Amino acid sequence: MATPYAKLQGGSTTTYNDKYVVLYDFGDAEHDVAIDQFKTLLEDLDEAGLDTEVRPGYEQSLLVFVKAPQELLGRAVHKSRVKDWLYGITPNHPGGDKNTVAKGAFEAEEVLSVYHLVNWPKELGGAGITPGIGKWERVKSIFPLHNTEVNQSLLRHLSKRIFLKPEDLDSIRDLHGSKVAFYFAFIQTYLLFLSIPAITGVIAWLWLPRYSLAYGILTSVWCTVFLEYWKIKEVDLSLRWGVKGIQTVKVTRPQFKYEKVFVDEGGRTHYYFPKWKQITWQLMQIPFLPFAMVALGTAIVSVFAIEILISETYAGPYKFYLEYLPTILLAVSLPYITTALEDAATWSTELENHRTADHHEMSLTQKIFVLNMCTNYLPIFLTAFIYVPFGDDVVPRLEAILERILASFGQKFIHVPFRVDSERLRNEVIALTVTGQISSFFEENIMPLMKHKLSGWYRNYREAHSEGATLQSIVPDEASEAAFLARCRNEATLPLYNVQEDISEIVLQFGYLALFSPVWPIISIGFLVNNWIELRSDFAKISIEHQRPAPVRADGIGPWIYSLDALTWLGSISTAAIVHLFSTEHFGNESWAMLPVTVFISEHVLLLLRVLVRSVLHQAGSEKIRKDRDQRYANRVRHLEEMEASKRAGVGLTVAERERRKSVLVTGKDVFWTRQVDEGSSEAFGINLIKQVKRGEEGKCQEPKMQFQTGQDKGERIIALRLANNQECTNMVKEDNHSY
Amino acid sequence: MATPYAKLQGGSTTTYNDKYVVLYDFGDAEHDVAIDQFKTLLEDLDEAGLDTEVRPGYEQSLLVFVKAPQELLGRAVHKSRVKDWLYGITPNHPGGDKNTVAKGAFEAEEVLSVYHLVNWPKELGGAGITPGIGKWERVKSIFPLHNTEVNQSLLRHLSKRIFLKPEDLDSIRDLHGSKVAFYFAFIQTYLLFLSIPAITGVIAWLWLPRYSLAYGILTSVWCTVFLEYWKIKEVDLSLRWGVKGIQTVKVTRPQFKYEKVFVDEGGRTHYYFPKWKQITWQLMQIPFLPFAMVALGTAIVSVFAIEILISETYAGPYKFYLEYLPTILLAVSLPYITTALEDAATWSTELENHRTADHHEMSLTQKIFVLNMCTNYLPIFLTAFIYVPFGDDVVPRLEAILERILASFGQKFIHVPFRVDSERLRNEVIALTVTGQISSFFEENIMPLMKHKLSGWYRNYREAHSEGATLQSIVPDEASEAAFLARCRNEATLPLYNVQEDISEIVLQFGYLALFSPVWPIISIGFLVNNWIELRSDFAKISIEHQRPAPVRADGIGPWIYSLDALTWLGSISTAAIVHLFSTEHFGNESWAMLPVTVFISEHVLLLLRVLVRSVLHQAGSEKIRKDRDQRYANRVRHLEEMEASKRAGVGLTVAERERRKSVLVTGKDVFWTRQVDEGSSEAFGINLIKQVKRGEEGKCQEPKMQFQTGQDKGERIIALRLANNQECTNMVKEDNHSY
Repeated sequence: MATPYAKLQGGSTTTYNDKYVVLYDFGDAEHDVAIDQFKTLLEDLDEAGLDTEVRPGYEQSLLVFVKAPQELLGRAVHKSRVKDWLYGITPNHPGGDKNTVAKGAFEAEEVLSVYHLVNWPKELGGAGITPGIGKWERVKSIFPLHNTEVNQSLLRHLSKRIFLKPEDLDSIRDLHGSKVAFYFAFIQTYLLFLSIPAITGVIAWLWLPRYSLAYGILTSVWCTVFLEYWKIKEVDLSLRWGVKGIQTVKVTRPQFKYEKVFVDEGGRTHYYFPKWKQITWQLMQIPFLPFAMVALGTAIVSVFAIEILISETYAGPYKFYLEYLPTILLAVSLPYITTALEDAATWSTELENHRTADHHEMSLTQKIFVLNMCTNYLPIFLTAFIYVPFGDDVVPRLEAILERILASFGQKFIHVPFRVDSERLRNEVIALTVTGQISSFFEENIMPLMKHKLSGWYRNYREAHSEGATLQSIVPDEASEAAFLARCRNEATLPLYNVQEDISEIVLQFGYLALFSPVWPIISIGFLVNNWIELRSDFAKISIEHQRPAPVRADGIGPWIYSLDALTWLGSISTAAIVHLFSTEHFGNESWAMLPVTVFISEHVLLLLRVLVRSVLHQAGSEKIRKDRDQRYANRVRHLEEMEASKRAGVGLTVAERERRKSVLVTGKDVFWTRQVDEGSSEAFGINLIKQVKRGEEGKCQEPKMQFQTGQDKGERIIALRLANNQECTNMVKEDNHSY
Repeated sequence: MATPYAKLQGGSTTTYNDKYVVLYDFGDAEHDVAIDQFKTLLEDLDEAGLDTEVRPGYEQSLLVFVKAPQELLGRAVHKSRVKDWLYGITPNHPGGDKNTVAKGAFEAEEVLSVYHLVNWPKELGGAGITPGIGKWERVKSIFPLHNTEVNQSLLRHLSKRIFLKPEDLDSIRDLHGSKVAFYFAFIQTYLLFLSIPAITGVIAWLWLPRYSLAYGILTSVWCTVFLEYWKIKEVDLSLRWGVKGIQTVKVTRPQFKYEKVFVDEGGRTHYYFPKWKQITWQLMQIPFLPFAMVALGTAIVSVFAIEILISETYAGPYKFYLEYLPTILLAVSLPYITTALEDAATWSTELENHRTADHHEMSLTQKIFVLNMCTNYLPIFLTAFIYVPFGDDVVPRLEAILERILASFGQKFIHVPFRVDSERLRNEVIALTVTGQISSFFEENIMPLMKHKLSGWYRNYREAHSEGATLQSIVPDEASEAAFLARCRNEATLPLYNVQEDISEIVLQFGYLALFSPVWPIISIGFLVNNWIELRSDFAKISIEHQRPAPVRADGIGPWIYSLDALTWLGSISTAAIVHLFSTEHFGNESWAMLPVTVFISEHVLLLLRVLVRSVLHQAGSEKIRKDRDQRYANRVRHLEEMEASKRAGVGLTVAERERRKSVLVTGKDVFWTRQVDEGSSEAFGINLIKQVKRGEEGKCQEPKMQFQTGQDKGERIIALRLANNQECTNMVKEDNHSY
């Protein structure tokens, strides 16, 4: 992967892979403050040994280009590798010493090192630039520049392949680091597995009855197998990329509150915050989720209720418009509710005081995911378990309430005989998944592009018509740099990329399959097609619509595993309930009475299956995991050098050695071990005994008595036999005695 | 712990801690075969470098005393430590080289090394003596001699303490190795935790209603907390004893079937058996358990049914005797059924072809545990969920069937109006737990002792009256050795100790608590008392009634954790069901209809709680675990020596260094980085821009234009400013220009 990295762009003399950009925006600052903060920025960067170039940005912002000199960078790369080894992430010491200047094995490794030089705190050798925090409040972002050429060639390559190979994932890792690459690995594995429900889904759709039990079982099993397979795959990849357990290497985030600092035996600085406090804070956040779910749930339920009332029983004027009112209300209010809840989640996560940025990010995303789950799955649950079965009871009652409350509008509600729309469940699922997928595609890909273009156009318009000075008008770009700087300015205005959002989307989709697959079996085909495109479009999205993410490392998709686990579990309940209730098409009391039993059986069968699949896959393990273990062992062996397993000490004892040993035994205090100290004497003694007994048994001859005669001198013990009369036996014993 | 080890017993000159005994019994062998096998035995021991002394044993057996010479032993101890380090079990290399002769840190370490020298295959430096297998079919056992003195003093010590300290567990580890010590640690932790349900149990018994919901919840929560705590504790202890992950060090058991042998990079020999074959075999064993459970279940159910029929409805002659008939039948037949099933389990486990003896043993014990669960819990389940609620329906029907079948006896059944004995559930639990605990105490402690005494007495009788030669009559013991040899002969006749059986007993007891606690709340007090005694009596049992176990190592109680997990889970279902059904005292249809809902809620609340407790305890972690991690890190740091974290390269750059860097940049191809190559020039450039914009904003002065003038010579680039007319602004810019 060295070639594209070394290449220069468009034949110009401007390299770009070594540049990191710090965006300094002093638009809202006083003159002196702006200058002071800028000075500090440049000094800190300089102190960390980084070269800087400053160019004007859009409006009142400066682009500080940062470059790590070859030597500093090489040392940082080497140091990072040594650190990985120190923390036990990689089995092998990278070789070299503290002066080694290493070359990055791939682009992301060097970019990551530059990132660390800019971002890490000073005591770790960085410049400590943390955008938006403390004295860096005016540093809007720090980001590496996109490697447009590699981006484009990789995107072309991905678009041509039907399924990605491990090497393709490596390429993504080489460009964007393992955290991003793990997302692509996940969606790729999921995509591969999706082909199974896609096929069975079509079969179920064509030939099986609606809400088919067989298809439900199959999908639940599929979810379990996929999930357990991915867990192995994840470890496998983390070993392939040498990042297993990388969380332990992560630095403390600057917002982390600690009570004291101490340095351990290994020279590491620890920021200590009492575990119990952290746990207490985390436990105190538990009420947040139920509260948020209730808030969100209430909004959804009321809109749901009003919508049904209007669309299916209201017959007054403006019905056509009124029918859309609640949906519009929801569409308008939901973002506000969600934003408020997300703010609460952010605040709540901040209180949890996670040590690393990774943990913080994950905790936050998990909270938001639960909210997403609510908005996405709740309407379906309501339809399946309240509207369809109880609609005939509930809707008229709702009507009555509404009529009483809105007495003045009362006459406008006409008792249209209400009939439950049993297709509604299917329609709800279709609406939420299909439109969800399409709208999220627009939201992700088209909208930001349009927004970006529009805001660019508006900025140009303002700059053209503003009276004050713009930086670019003060220092016009050099012709040779103009194109490059235009690109940099553009990238500076792009939003940050958050891989968690993309994972969240796939997990949400997986949830539809796990929870509601029997409702509309061919849903999987839609997902298959969507994800094939999604994988490519997400790569394009990172390349075009976002600042290039710092290629940070991760050893998997983190706690999303738990979300997937929980969804599979919930799925075993939800799928069973849906099949149980809907496959018979009538909702009698009997059906309801047996529902918990069905759910109970389904859930526990699935759990047993999970244990089984897990233990089988775990035992099968992966070649990579085994190799890593062997490698670690082999390394320790190599460390041993002269300490090779000592040769078996007993083999081929020399006569002298035997004599020495004998004397050790004889001069020892323990008489016991001196009885049969001569070579072969214990053997002879035992054989003799056996012979006598066996002969005695066979010939019934009288056995000779045998005993030790312990001499006074410990050195010369003689074992003698008092022979008995029986001649045959005596002869035998005599014979054997020769060997003494 | 060195003192008792070095001491001699009873002032005699016979040490005993260095002796390992190989019991060779040639009673059933032909003359020549007996001699050949004995020869091989002695030769193999000799080849491994071990000293031997042979003494006659009981009847036709020989006691081969084995001693590892000090040097060989010390090397073996050292080698074992190095091996632990190689496999990553202990963080620190023990120091020394291949010739190091180490002293065991405690008795068990040396005894274990002797065991390895005797038992391990030749390629690992042992003599390869594996009792009962292949050419060693006549080696009945290999065992170390008991350290009577330490046994007794430790037992006295344990009896005096109310709760054991970690040091007491250390003492047990020092004597019998960590595998046995983990059992004591487990029962000790359990004992401590038991005090909580003991107290709440008494409270529930005195003041709460029967089948109290509150008490049920409390016990379920207690089970969860105990289990999660023990998981942490286990890891903690395994680190304390330096045995975490010790399974990987375990040697391949001789019965292991493999397809090929290969040597890996680290020089380890691997016996390869395809994973998929092993997994297939294991999966094929799945039908075994259901089959065994059905077989056992049928036997229990029929006895249960007959017993009820006779005791509660039969009124014919001999009722008193007949009532006991089924129980006697069960008591007589159950051992046969169980033995048959255990044989099947053994055979089935053999087919699973586990690589290590540990895994084999665990798999087998788990199977037997499931059978035990059946015999112990099934009667209670039957009483709770069939007999009590449905007795009024089922019993008359059973009667009718029986009457029809046994038409001739028909008249002897009198329709005594059947009334369900609602106390029966309580009585069943009391009977099974109390009598179970007492009878198991007898079975474990009194019975074997009596059996042993009896068989000893019978042996003496036989020897006294036998016509053939006994070994002891051929070679009478030396007076000085007589007492010692008598002890050894006695130990040779004792059975092997299997720690799994003891753990199984405690897990079974835990199951009663988890599954049926609300039935009889004060049960926990009984358990508390029982276990306090059990702990001590088990230690005594090992010392007196069993051969001293080889002090093998383990890093916990192994898969029993899963059993405990499963029992806790089942408990959340069973407890809820019992409370739900019995607390109202009537079993209407409504009660049954809501049962699955109660169970569902209880189960899932408990599962959520488990996740919570686990994550809290996991995060709190343990000091030991953290220290181990830090230690491993510190070691790697020490390994680095000269590679200490390279000093931050950027601090205090010398002038020469700066110039060198500058020239690197200037002579580079990339013009971009040469613009502001002079020290402070990028800072000045930026500040200038800020100033102009801010002044411009404030004073609305016309901004001066500024641009680069790139000279032809790359070495001397000058940045100049084209100044504008506005004087104020110009002056400002001029000032700033000085710093260029």
